[in-house]
Amino acid sequence: MKTLAVMTAGGDAPGMNSCLRAVVRTGLNNGLKVIAVHHAYKGLVEGAFMEMSARDVGGIIQRGGTCLQSGRFPEFVDARHQKAAIRQLKSAQVDGLVVIGGEGSMNGALALHRLRFPVIGVPASIDNDIYGTQMAIGVDTALNTIMEAIDKLRDTASSHRRAFIIETMGRECGFLALISGIIGGAEMILIPEKEADPKEVAEAISDAHARGKTHAIVVVAEGSDLHASALMQKLNKLKTGFDFRLTILGHIQRGGRPTAFDRLLATRFGVAAVEQLLAGKSGLMVGLEGREIVTVPLSKVCTKKRRANLEYYRLARMLAK
Amino acid sequence: MKTLAVMTAGGDAPGMNSCLRAVVRTGLNNGLKVIAVHHAYKGLVEGAFMEMSARDVGGIIQRGGTCLQSGRFPEFVDARHQKAAIRQLKSAQVDGLVVIGGEGSMNGALALHRLRFPVIGVPASIDNDIYGTQMAIGVDTALNTIMEAIDKLRDTASSHRRAFIIETMGRECGFLALISGIIGGAEMILIPEKEADPKEVAEAISDAHARGKTHAIVVVAEGSDLHASALMQKLNKLKTGFDFRLTILGHIQRGGRPTAFDRLLATRFGVAAVEQLLAGKSGLMVGLEGREIVTVPLSKVCTKKRRANLEYYRLARMLAK
Amino acid sequence: MKTLAVMTAGGDAPGMNSCLRAVVRTGLNNGLKVIAVHHAYKGLVEGAFMEMSARDVGGIIQRGGTCLQSGRFPEFVDARHQKAAIRQLKSAQVDGLVVIGGEGSMNGALALHRLRFPVIGVPASIDNDIYGTQMAIGVDTALNTIMEAIDKLRDTASSHRRAFIIETMGRECGFLALISGIIGGAEMILIPEKEADPKEVAEAISDAHARGKTHAIVVVAEGSDLHASALMQKLNKLKTGFDFRLTILGHIQRGGRPTAFDRLLATRFGVAAVEQLLAGKSGLMVGLEGREIVTVPLSKVCTKKRRANLEYYRLARMLAK
Amino acid sequence: MKTLAVMTAGGDAPGMNSCLRAVVRTGLNNGLKVIAVHHAYKGLVEGAFMEMSARDVGGIIQRGGTCLQSGRFPEFVDARHQKAAIRQLKSAQVDGLVVIGGEGSMNGALALHRLRFPVIGVPASIDNDIYGTQMAIGVDTALNTIMEAIDKLRDTASSHRRAFIIETMGRECGFLALISGIIGGAEMILIPEKEADPKEVAEAISDAHARGKTHAIVVVAEGSDLHASALMQKLNKLKTGFDFRLTILGHIQRGGRPTAFDRLLATRFGVAAVEQLLAGKSGLMVGLEGREIVTVPLSKVCTKKRRANLEYYRLARMLAK
Repeated sequence: MKTLAVMTAGGDAPGMNSCLRAVVRTGLNNGLKVIAVHHAYKGLVEGAFMEMSARDVGGIIQRGGTCLQSGRFPEFVDARHQKAAIRQLKSAQVDGLVVIGGEGSMNGALALHRLRFPVIGVPASIDNDIYGTQMAIGVDTALNTIMEAIDKLRDTASSHRRAFIIETMGRECGFLALISGIIGGAEMILIPEKEADPKEVAEAISDAHARGKTHAIVVVAEGSDLHASALMQKLNKLKTGFDFRLTILGHIQRGGRPTAFDRLLATRFGVAAVEQLLAGKSGLMVGLEGREIVTVPLSKVCTKKRRANLEYYRLARMLAK
Repeated sequence: MKTLAVMTAGGDAPGMNSCLRAVVRTGLNNGLKVIAVHHAYKGLVEGAFMEMSARDVGGIIQRGGTCLQSGRFPEFVDARHQKAAIRQLKSAQVDGLVVIGGEGSMNGALALHRLRFPVIGVPASIDNDIYGTQMAIGVDTALNTIMEAIDKLRDTASSHRRAFIIETMGRECGFLALISGIIGGAEMILIPEKEADPKEVAEAISDAHARGKTHAIVVVAEGSDLHASALMQKLNKLKTGFDFRLTILGHIQRGGRPTAFDRLLATRFGVAAVEQLLAGKSGLMVGLEGREIVTVPLSKVCTKKRRANLEYYRLARMLAK
Repeated sequence: MKTLAVMTAGGDAPGMNSCLRAVVRTGLNNGLKVIAVHHAYKGLVEGAFMEMSARDVGGIIQRGGTCLQSGRFPEFVDARHQKAAIRQLKSAQVDGLVVIGGEGSMNGALALHRLRFPVIGVPASIDNDIYGTQMAIGVDTALNTIMEAIDKLRDTASSHRRAFIIETMGRECGFLALISGIIGGAEMILIPEKEADPKEVAEAISDAHARGKTHAIVVVAEGSDLHASALMQKLNKLKTGFDFRLTILGHIQRGGRPTAFDRLLATRFGVAAVEQLLAGKSGLMVGLEGREIVTVPLSKVCTKKRRANLEYYRLARMLAK
Repeated sequence: MKTLAVMTAGGDAPGMNSCLRAVVRTGLNNGLKVIAVHHAYKGLVEGAFMEMSARDVGGIIQRGGTCLQSGRFPEFVDARHQKAAIRQLKSAQVDGLVVIGGEGSMNGALALHRLRFPVIGVPASIDNDIYGTQMAIGVDTALNTIMEAIDKLRDTASSHRRAFIIETMGRECGFLALISGIIGGAEMILIPEKEADPKEVAEAISDAHARGKTHAIVVVAEGSDLHASALMQKLNKLKTGFDFRLTILGHIQRGGRPTAFDRLLATRFGVAAVEQLLAGKSGLMVGLEGREIVTVPLSKVCTKKRRANLEYYRLARMLAK
């Protein structure tokens, strides 16, 4: 192996830059030429390549987002685009590719592998919805961002005996909502993995009020079957003792400097991905299992779903009391 | 003067606790008994009083919100309530009152003064919409909160060549939007003080795109005549080169630990308010003029409006280029 | 089991309050009376007990330090004190004790267990030097604090082509120095687990200078055989191209609001500790193994040492290039 | 005027980059060519010039330190170097220079002005020791950094009934120590402007202990006549009830992302500096007076001293009780 390429794809996540730095430096330290692909799969098809030096990734370990520009390119399911990508890679004499991205990006990586191009995936997604890893790049930073927002909302909630409904990201996986609800001291958490009952929510809030709490927090994942704004309307009709307000955290959850955990995870993933390619492997995604870096076939990653652990749900309900 | 009372009223603002601490300690150091009024004007009418010691305000200088519970009580315009409040104050032998709050709260303070009860107001409002002070308690913290949110949104915007519309607080005063727009590097800022033209916004964004910017930021005050969501719809129809997303910052702008500036301002205001009462003054609000603490009659505070300085608007437009 | 006691002991760590909250609420939810012991082992001997309600631990999940006051009490090795402690516990009808603390505190817990008092330990120590758990409460927060300090030092280092030596905590275990060195992009890391060679350090720095780096960072654990200030003197004599400055981070590493990771870990530990007591267990410490909560005998915790993983050292050296 | 040059000099301060951005954009918007001088006065003498576009200062408003590399160059007092600098400026057809820096840098600026080269100074110094401006660039950020460190130390101090001595920057001016002491709730503050008496400090601490405080904080400016470490030794000998620890904050005070206040101040200063040059002015420094931007002759800046306002000292002593 002589030339390595690396790209970031899909929604950005804090820590992508830390991972990019690790891939580039590990490649260079192993005597490889390293090429960065800009603009994700679209750039791959169009050959938006740039050679990287060790200095090009200096000072980026702490930056949010991705220096390589990311983006979605659903057209990549088309085999014509996939073949064009491989032509571009081959004409730049690339021998192996690292794809840093979410579930959708892993599908693209699998397609390239099936066309016999060596590729290793690295999971990055603040939602933590990627099968095969207990934590993806960006999750820890997003959790801290949500937690700080909840801390701020609690300041004002407590000052006014108010309740807040906070909508977090998470279309199919309630991980962010569940964990941030526990560490934010939420009275109730709504996630896609569990049917929501507005009456149960109202009861939990009324209980909190009766127990003398000066505020109440409800965390709702974006993909919950009961939407946050619908929930607010229902709750404000029922008598809970609190006046409800809604905060949709939105894209601030994607930004920010990566935390210590995300920088370390991203670094370890980046090193491991290059080592897998050097060892002649392909079609795998690196993942975290406990505190160990493992690999899992991309074919599994792309067919299975990761869901939030409902054991945490029970924990949250118990601690709210 | 022997007994001093202090209350926080209206929307909470970071630094209210720092001010409360200063009022209590200045009172005690001057040999006064100090009483805290809980639940704002409602608590004043109902006599929700508690005597404070120096230790009661230990460890609160850094806390967001207000320990005394705040709240709105529009019924206080009724003279019956005002007189009941004065009866409560007198029966607790209170000789003077410090009211920490926003514009509405200053109206209540003025009413008490007109009924010949000694009262001094302290301006606290993240919107910075109070006449008579260049900065109110909470504004600097809110600005930093908005700035950090914009920094985070820029991370993700740059990674995807995207544009963000950010709605800040500010119903009648565009101060927060204007200053955060300047320091957040916004392409365009919409404030209540200036008519908005969606075409002008679109042009500014298109220009930014043409100049090679990888992201664009538009900051919109809550009270802008063109609402943030309406603006997004319009912009996404026009061809600007960017895909727009909307983030409504909401109540997180009210929370958080007060900044250095807010802790110092709140402390100086608190000390000055007690000194005014000790000097036999009433019917005044303390304010910041340059770096000096001044006083201004509550009658002026309650009849005039503070608006954002349009000189900053010109600055913002020039720097965006 | 009817009455549960809980204490924090040894050096404080961010997350102790989150753990305390979880212990109290889990106890109450299981119908137990819960008693907090103030002032650690000294308070245990003297009976500084206070009954806790669910509200007493409201609003503490996010606070640094410990509400219960901690402290060292080496005299507790004396069996006389241990027996006095058990007398106090029994006279308050306590049936089981949770001790949240570091390695020294686990020794005290083991002593009580050997005197047949039911006790479960919870590891809290920013140094991460406790055998039997991969992460102790407070480590993640301390890592983020160190990382932010390094980010700040790098700002100024880059502006002046300067090098910084940063001393972190860690008397016997180099974990904090090692991980913060990796995520802070340090050129070199000195830890107690590995002999330091000033010439090797100088070479790494000279190399960095030759490669065009505008700054250099060396992270040194408190317990490294070559002390940070001695290293600085040596490096400033050798020709590395950089002018060195020293920063001793000191006690700021212990403070701060717990991170998401620490709040969750502390919460899970607290719940598990109470569940162990309810299941009739004693003489165990709860720990983290991968992402699972496990238990390990206190007798092992107190005789074995946890040291930093030297695999990370290799990683750090490779990425610095 | 056709060509403008800008440089940062002396110790770096957060906000220098925000100012640089404002200078460059204001210059370009007025049709000027803008040249950045790298490596401060040394680079000026050697002609380390680079033309700047609007995009070159994109994304730097939030970065700590200075992109232009700063540094001290005491040799610039030599007229030979000053003349060489002017030759370099003239050969690059520069018509005016903006110097962003501290007191020493203003001396260099004055020298160039006296040799009839148009120059405007911008005050940047975290110590706030520059005559002619109430706030210099970087002061507000440094204050917030110190405040956050004190908040962290207080967490651990309260948990152990401990006292901390915190050394801040400030060789000749006690501003940082004084203000951070007030907003950090310090029991005592030592500054160069006031003789220190260890017995008075000990008394204040003993008083705090007697009043039941669980911690004590003493803030000491670097330039206090009684050095922080000497103070600690003395205090630990006297009986105050507390065990003292020392934390020297050091260079972390210079780093970090600029706060809202510093970004705005730096931006306004940068715009004003260019406007002064465009108006044909020279030999002036821009400054903040109240909330207005003013100018002051460099000859005054270089001969007068700015010292901390002792009124704040009285305030601090009163509030500590």
